Amino acid sequence: MILEKISGPSDVSELNLGELELLAEEVREALIYRLSESGGHVGSNLGVVELTVALHYVFDSPKDKLIWDVSHQCYAHKMLTGRRQAYTDKAHFGDVTGFTNIEESEHDHFTVGHTATSISLALGMAKARDISGKKENIIAIIGDGAMSGGEAYEALNYAGEYDKNLIIILNDNNQSIGENHGGLYAKLTELRNTAGQSLDNVFRGLNLDYMYLDEGHNVEKLVDTLKKVKDIDHPVVLHVHTTKGKGLPYSEANKEDWHSSGPFNVKDGSSKNGIPNYDMTIHDSIIDLYNRDSTAVVISAATPRAMGFVGDERADYIEKGRFVDVGIAEENAMAMASGMAKYGITAVFGAYGTFLQRTYDQLIHDLCLNNSPATILVLMPGAYGMKSNTHFSMCDIQMFSHVPNLVYLSPAYKEEYQASFKYATMQKEHPVAIRVPNRFYECGYKDNTDYSLINKAKIMREGSGAAIIAVGALIPKALEMADECVEKLGIDITVINPVFLSGIDVELLEKLKENHDLVITMEDGILDGGYGTAIAGYYGDSAMKVITLGITKEFHSNFNTEELLNACGISTEKVLEIIKGNLKL
Amino acid sequence: MILEKISGPSDVSELNLGELELLAEEVREALIYRLSESGGHVGSNLGVVELTVALHYVFDSPKDKLIWDVSHQCYAHKMLTGRRQAYTDKAHFGDVTGFTNIEESEHDHFTVGHTATSISLALGMAKARDISGKKENIIAIIGDGAMSGGEAYEALNYAGEYDKNLIIILNDNNQSIGENHGGLYAKLTELRNTAGQSLDNVFRGLNLDYMYLDEGHNVEKLVDTLKKVKDIDHPVVLHVHTTKGKGLPYSEANKEDWHSSGPFNVKDGSSKNGIPNYDMTIHDSIIDLYNRDSTAVVISAATPRAMGFVGDERADYIEKGRFVDVGIAEENAMAMASGMAKYGITAVFGAYGTFLQRTYDQLIHDLCLNNSPATILVLMPGAYGMKSNTHFSMCDIQMFSHVPNLVYLSPAYKEEYQASFKYATMQKEHPVAIRVPNRFYECGYKDNTDYSLINKAKIMREGSGAAIIAVGALIPKALEMADECVEKLGIDITVINPVFLSGIDVELLEKLKENHDLVITMEDGILDGGYGTAIAGYYGDSAMKVITLGITKEFHSNFNTEELLNACGISTEKVLEIIKGNLKL
Repeated sequence: MILEKISGPSDVSELNLGELELLAEEVREALIYRLSESGGHVGSNLGVVELTVALHYVFDSPKDKLIWDVSHQCYAHKMLTGRRQAYTDKAHFGDVTGFTNIEESEHDHFTVGHTATSISLALGMAKARDISGKKENIIAIIGDGAMSGGEAYEALNYAGEYDKNLIIILNDNNQSIGENHGGLYAKLTELRNTAGQSLDNVFRGLNLDYMYLDEGHNVEKLVDTLKKVKDIDHPVVLHVHTTKGKGLPYSEANKEDWHSSGPFNVKDGSSKNGIPNYDMTIHDSIIDLYNRDSTAVVISAATPRAMGFVGDERADYIEKGRFVDVGIAEENAMAMASGMAKYGITAVFGAYGTFLQRTYDQLIHDLCLNNSPATILVLMPGAYGMKSNTHFSMCDIQMFSHVPNLVYLSPAYKEEYQASFKYATMQKEHPVAIRVPNRFYECGYKDNTDYSLINKAKIMREGSGAAIIAVGALIPKALEMADECVEKLGIDITVINPVFLSGIDVELLEKLKENHDLVITMEDGILDGGYGTAIAGYYGDSAMKVITLGITKEFHSNFNTEELLNACGISTEKVLEIIKGNLKL
Repeated sequence: MILEKISGPSDVSELNLGELELLAEEVREALIYRLSESGGHVGSNLGVVELTVALHYVFDSPKDKLIWDVSHQCYAHKMLTGRRQAYTDKAHFGDVTGFTNIEESEHDHFTVGHTATSISLALGMAKARDISGKKENIIAIIGDGAMSGGEAYEALNYAGEYDKNLIIILNDNNQSIGENHGGLYAKLTELRNTAGQSLDNVFRGLNLDYMYLDEGHNVEKLVDTLKKVKDIDHPVVLHVHTTKGKGLPYSEANKEDWHSSGPFNVKDGSSKNGIPNYDMTIHDSIIDLYNRDSTAVVISAATPRAMGFVGDERADYIEKGRFVDVGIAEENAMAMASGMAKYGITAVFGAYGTFLQRTYDQLIHDLCLNNSPATILVLMPGAYGMKSNTHFSMCDIQMFSHVPNLVYLSPAYKEEYQASFKYATMQKEHPVAIRVPNRFYECGYKDNTDYSLINKAKIMREGSGAAIIAVGALIPKALEMADECVEKLGIDITVINPVFLSGIDVELLEKLKENHDLVITMEDGILDGGYGTAIAGYYGDSAMKVITLGITKEFHSNFNTEELLNACGISTEKVLEIIKGNLKL
């Protein structure tokens, strides 16, 4: 075993070629072991094993700086930089996160999880190096999928006028999460097919030096090529052809399914947890839209699976022009949605809340300023959504609730989601964003809300004394709390679903004054600037007491939602205490 | 006069070549008349006169859709689409805005003022056209400067796999607001120098068809070329070489100064208003930084003049690597700032608040998640900042105050700005954003604030009964109100400068309870989700009355700041009334 002797990159640099090749084999074996046990990003990590070994052989990390784009391909890098055990010993699985992490190692320069950022970050480091009079290599490793993102282009363009050392390794496995989209990819394919000789070369078109290596799993060739670019005195794009999922036949064959995975049996790739049960609520709401509106179009920015569109069905709707995947390009997606809506058709753009942060300006300027009646689906926001600090999505209310013209809806139940989606896609009055619940609880009755009554909240349970106003996902919890109030405090409180997060129901808030002394707001996003403060602002000059509960302003990571909510005071115990204390029961 | 007979594009399409050329002359004459009388975007408008005439001759607007990027070059378009008088008759100057405007004309498809959006908007319309079974031409007209923006690239890339009519006119005058930055521009120059024949062609690299026209002011050639692309069945980039400022020798010679201008004398270009008096406070704070920190770097995204850097001085600092202009590429700028700060040097990125919206995700993910101690200067936000709805910047507090790790400072006076800038650029604890005042009032004394005491507010005047907590720019107004309170109500109120907008001073807020019954918050941004609601949230369960004042949630445009503030209740009269009513005086 060579891997067990590697405690850092300096150990890698002492190996000979045969040993490097063996090390790569062992790294892949360890990867497969850990991935099959605990799941993770399969394809991207298997695709860069040899590249990572060669990088740590040729360059001198952390003096030379390796900056991994997205960083979901960093497992081999972690293995070679002192974190080997986290991949070979189950007891140490918890020692590392799935992304580069500045708190783990001096070899990780940034904590990242979003695509298309590495070249910019590298450029910043390169300029800082120059002004500091230093000389080390700055290396960005970026996948082909990330190359559809505007930030990557902005950085490539600036790199095209930069004149010092900067090495951009384009790790091209011809696959994004799903298939790639964009003219770039036809031309990258031409470059691969011509060993880099094709004249239509976007990098040269941006004034960048360019080199090509076809054998991206050949350690010897990788080492030779990396030695050629080491200490180069100007920016260069090194285009390396790799295979996503390399080493596991089923992941090589089905790249999208194996982008990431839960625990699996190595022999055949079958899941250890059984077949995951995908909720088709979003998908079905879109099919319903397609059926009732012959020109409706749905847009995704490289995450079509998040809306349940896969395989032949997706290909079919793309072919018909009814499903558009623009690649990792949220800015373009948002503005296209505005263009479609302005033309007069029904347009829906669905994306994870964390990635919608990339298109805040297009939301404001392209969509809302033009009052284009498109529908934006905000997926997995808040504490019930993504659990990694690299995929922060706790400020969606701050982002979506305060833009003029925009209506932000927060359905609590499956039935409410369905009705609000139908409303959003049938009206032509304004842009509508929907905070899509991460889990679709069913309330069991039809949602008859008239969503055209803007800002009208819904009384879920009518009582007195205290009222809880809870943002969407927290409604079931609020109703449980109300039950407990009857049982433990002997009072019947009110529970309100605000439905609209982009405004308040003044009439209802006024009416509450008649027989309530306390309003508690609860939200699963960051408290500061969130929904609850709007309620507090409204009641500021009245006798109504308002307690706002929400998530503390931190980059929470790898959290358990219930534990986080509890820690932020969103628990039955704490809320009953608040009610008891304030109502002097 | 031909222009006076043009009431719409159909009148243009009936002219012969000689008449078209005459029309172009008259349009330029009208442009110069209006620009010299009322100011506006000089260079961009003079540069597209012939192109605009040819477009309206060849295409059939509004069926064919002309989508102007940024739209600060739309004056000729407005003249030819029924809005002629607004350029020839002073009494009608107020009839039009300086940007395309959906409320003005069916020939304006979008209200826009930000760059790099036109191709995305056009793609949205093109896809909507296809699904609607229609056939008209969709044309985006985009400048070379805008091509550095990520959104433009994302759209170009998607256009590269799109297979129906889409015409992208690259209006290349080899000039952004200042000089262009990025490798793209070296290659656009090569394309111009080789009549489009150079092989390093970024558009072909993205799988796009490409055509070149060198004589961008020759109406006949423009008409011929546009006829060739009319009804084309796939996307094409038509690269047209034009001259910014065409027709006025001084604006052709000095393109940056003539990007936009106030009223001027046509004869020699001298200003009718005298030489504008630039405030050099930001510039001088940066020079001070350069002098005390030999590796500090300042970044701009194509608006270096906003920080006072022009001419030789700018060129000199760029040459030294101490001033970096990345082009219109805020995403890259923000991430580069993070990279620099992570490397260990002092990095400052300054940009208009409205454009920082484009880099919300990089702020969260690249900068704050990594707690990189860079300084972000937020220029011209709020009601004292930009006055056009196309340059909306009223949600900066919502954007900057709630991101974990970020400190958002709001200096009220020049002295406070200087001290907070010094603090931000000397500390290495966290990213700091500064809400830079639009006008630097001097308070006349040194600012001795210890900014390392995070969230510590400043008592500007100590009184009792009522307290005003006013965000930066409104402090002078709040102090005036306090004077009026003494005079008219006979009470001495407290005035507080929160200094930090990213948190609250709990100790001070608690202390206020001792001898205050009312807190009034004032901010010059949108009230919902703003600073005041944080105060209201804090006092929610106490007896303290809180009245929050801020701007209503609308796309206010062409407003007078004082009038808008008054309309939103931020006036001495209204505030005194509130105090009187609530304190029962």
